[in-house]
Amino acid sequence: MSTHAVADPVPQEALAELRHLLGERFSTGASVLEQHSHDESWHHPQAPHAVVWPETSDEVASIVQICSRHAMPVIPFGTGTSLEGQVVATAGGVSIDMMRMNRILRVSPEDLDATVEAGVTRKQLNEHLRDQGLFFPVDPGADASIGGMTATRASGTNAVRYGTMREVVLALKVVTPDGRIVETARRSRKSAAGYDLTRLFVGSEGTLGVITEITVRLFGIPEAISAATVSFPDIGSAVDAVIVTIQSGLQMARIELLDELQIEAINAYSGLENPVAPTLFLEFHGTTDGVGEQAERMGEICRDFGGSDFVWVTRQEDRNRLWQARHDAAWAAKALRPGCAMWPTDVCVPISRLAECIAATKEDLETTHIPAPIAGHVGDSNFHLVFLIDPDDPAELAEAERLNTRLVRRALAMDGTCTGEHGVGLGKMAFLEEEHGGAVDLMRQMKQALDPGNIMNPGKIFAM
Amino acid sequence: MSTHAVADPVPQEALAELRHLLGERFSTGASVLEQHSHDESWHHPQAPHAVVWPETSDEVASIVQICSRHAMPVIPFGTGTSLEGQVVATAGGVSIDMMRMNRILRVSPEDLDATVEAGVTRKQLNEHLRDQGLFFPVDPGADASIGGMTATRASGTNAVRYGTMREVVLALKVVTPDGRIVETARRSRKSAAGYDLTRLFVGSEGTLGVITEITVRLFGIPEAISAATVSFPDIGSAVDAVIVTIQSGLQMARIELLDELQIEAINAYSGLENPVAPTLFLEFHGTTDGVGEQAERMGEICRDFGGSDFVWVTRQEDRNRLWQARHDAAWAAKALRPGCAMWPTDVCVPISRLAECIAATKEDLETTHIPAPIAGHVGDSNFHLVFLIDPDDPAELAEAERLNTRLVRRALAMDGTCTGEHGVGLGKMAFLEEEHGGAVDLMRQMKQALDPGNIMNPGKIFAM
Repeated sequence: MSTHAVADPVPQEALAELRHLLGERFSTGASVLEQHSHDESWHHPQAPHAVVWPETSDEVASIVQICSRHAMPVIPFGTGTSLEGQVVATAGGVSIDMMRMNRILRVSPEDLDATVEAGVTRKQLNEHLRDQGLFFPVDPGADASIGGMTATRASGTNAVRYGTMREVVLALKVVTPDGRIVETARRSRKSAAGYDLTRLFVGSEGTLGVITEITVRLFGIPEAISAATVSFPDIGSAVDAVIVTIQSGLQMARIELLDELQIEAINAYSGLENPVAPTLFLEFHGTTDGVGEQAERMGEICRDFGGSDFVWVTRQEDRNRLWQARHDAAWAAKALRPGCAMWPTDVCVPISRLAECIAATKEDLETTHIPAPIAGHVGDSNFHLVFLIDPDDPAELAEAERLNTRLVRRALAMDGTCTGEHGVGLGKMAFLEEEHGGAVDLMRQMKQALDPGNIMNPGKIFAM
Repeated sequence: MSTHAVADPVPQEALAELRHLLGERFSTGASVLEQHSHDESWHHPQAPHAVVWPETSDEVASIVQICSRHAMPVIPFGTGTSLEGQVVATAGGVSIDMMRMNRILRVSPEDLDATVEAGVTRKQLNEHLRDQGLFFPVDPGADASIGGMTATRASGTNAVRYGTMREVVLALKVVTPDGRIVETARRSRKSAAGYDLTRLFVGSEGTLGVITEITVRLFGIPEAISAATVSFPDIGSAVDAVIVTIQSGLQMARIELLDELQIEAINAYSGLENPVAPTLFLEFHGTTDGVGEQAERMGEICRDFGGSDFVWVTRQEDRNRLWQARHDAAWAAKALRPGCAMWPTDVCVPISRLAECIAATKEDLETTHIPAPIAGHVGDSNFHLVFLIDPDDPAELAEAERLNTRLVRRALAMDGTCTGEHGVGLGKMAFLEEEHGGAVDLMRQMKQALDPGNIMNPGKIFAM
């Protein structure tokens, strides 16, 4: 893989100061730089000049102060599992690897909240919580860091019931681009005290500061959980069943769609035998009676739309297997074409347009030889494609770009968004302007105000 | 009432331009200015130089452009029911009365959302929605405009289940301080596309722009609704019942506390005969079976804490009467002391501290002769006092200020916030600094970036 392409001379003085500050927790080793040059997407890797591993917010502040003085780019780095090139060091600089800040600082079962350092992963937090009967619901496919999930406004399969990072983050500790440590809010569930600084940083993709601590809402593990898979004769019927479910007010915990290609992929990858057909993965949370009632109603709706081959599971072990298969969807897709690179993309539309949007997208995919399974959090009207491409074939890159552009423009024409949960990073920058028009100038004004030197993850979300 | 106290000469040129633009929808009449000099709180009235009534976003943009050119303050004005002096024209200028922009532009039952102009009130929207089986849940006491509710991040009795304006606003049309019209988001339920401009304006209290259109989430009217009142031997028992309820994961639609003085007030005001004791007002939404199950569990919890005198109501007419009494709480309180002024205040704490916070507050109130009933959205751990004061008695103002300061500092010491839903306005400015510390500087940087001339509702939330 390539290293950074910055023409500037190597910022030796800044690097020396960082090395002095961090000792062995500073590195310019080739393999370390390579690891921090890319995320899990197809975007062209570009390495930072150095990587540092702070252990406290104070150290992060010192690092940012040094970088600020030397006008050196700062790229916050978690598990490296972003999907739009968010951690690629397009202008060199320092990657701040947050994974040594992985302490769970506080859990309050009474208040149903916890404070964690940015490097704590979602699975680590849930392991820690399990014995207390609590869980943290946001679950992107990867076992991402909660700092990274905050920065990209991550979402997942539970969002239809429990919300995304936008809803579950209560407060943040942040290092600002000038190296101050700031807390965005108190721990109360509601507040009307001033501008919503918390939501300002949720989804800012490292461009406004480094998130070092996150206070999140937790939820009680429900008394009863029931999950199911249901097959449909065609994707339109599956989507129509989802729309009726959401509109009827049935409170699903999860409602996920996989198309027949994605089912084929997970069957092969996870040794499963799901019927190869568009399939909904469902889950209900509540009391025993409540879950029974919801499941029965949902069953009726699915049958109305031709749903069949219901498989119900309630034991935790069986449910885990079912959802692991769903979470592995991207890896399973990748395995469909050995040696390929993934170009994942996602859009989100008003649910009244979801069936039409997916149908038009499927039609589009019939015109290409590039495999592109569909999976989606359809309860939120958010769905994903993964283009499986040969990264060394310019024609395939161009073809994926063409299909992606058509997908995004289709979603925008339906009053949807260019990304429901992956964020903008490098991959959706052009579309951000199409989506927001003049509002991107407001974003620029805010960026300019908070980071006048443009050191924080420069070149992401929008050009300055 | 007094008019504005600005020493500057009257901005004749700007006023002439506005008069030319708006004709009869421009006024400098004394009674109009007086109406726009105050909200419903005790804050000292100060009148604007003029009031205008735009009918379109384009007109709002033209107004703001004129004001921007002449450095004239702009105060967005809805129903005038704010509670911390948000609409007081502390530096004169122009009040933009939004109440002629009262069209419901679009309702999508399929997507469970609607777009309204800023002057539409919450009751107006709900009247419009009822026949479609939908409702809009956010319900501050007043029949406020949805623009004003957005600007103050309003909340109400349903927030414990349906969220506050922070959660239910999907997108905004806003006129920026330089007179551009900007849309903050598309209509999809989720988005990870750039900074969260929507949440930036929700709660900005008119200091960053004029909100002209709001797209909000709607909800289906539940199949079954059951409401109840329950009396408790003391306020601590009532609060403990709430805490156990929330911690147990029971999904209440509403869970409200009124202390014995507030009960006395609503009995007198609304001709009711509730036992004069700390009382919870409850509501359950769901399926018939689900509501029955929740109500039974809640009943058990209340009885465990000495709850008695349960009154259950399910007919809409009876429920309306129950909740009207709750919504009239402030007016009922005011009637306890004829001729008094209200000094309403609210705080919000982590729920583990709620009982302690209310108990210490009650103790404090025993040291004063000023009546101050307590009511609260205790499911969110948010509660209100209304100090009933003689506004012409400086000793009473000082005493209310002393009690309010102790209340807020108590909440802050418990990691709570100086306001859960009324906003900062003029009344909580000093506490905002205590609560947020250095983070207020970030708010100032954003204000400075978006409104460098400081024309938008100057002097509110924080000093520049």
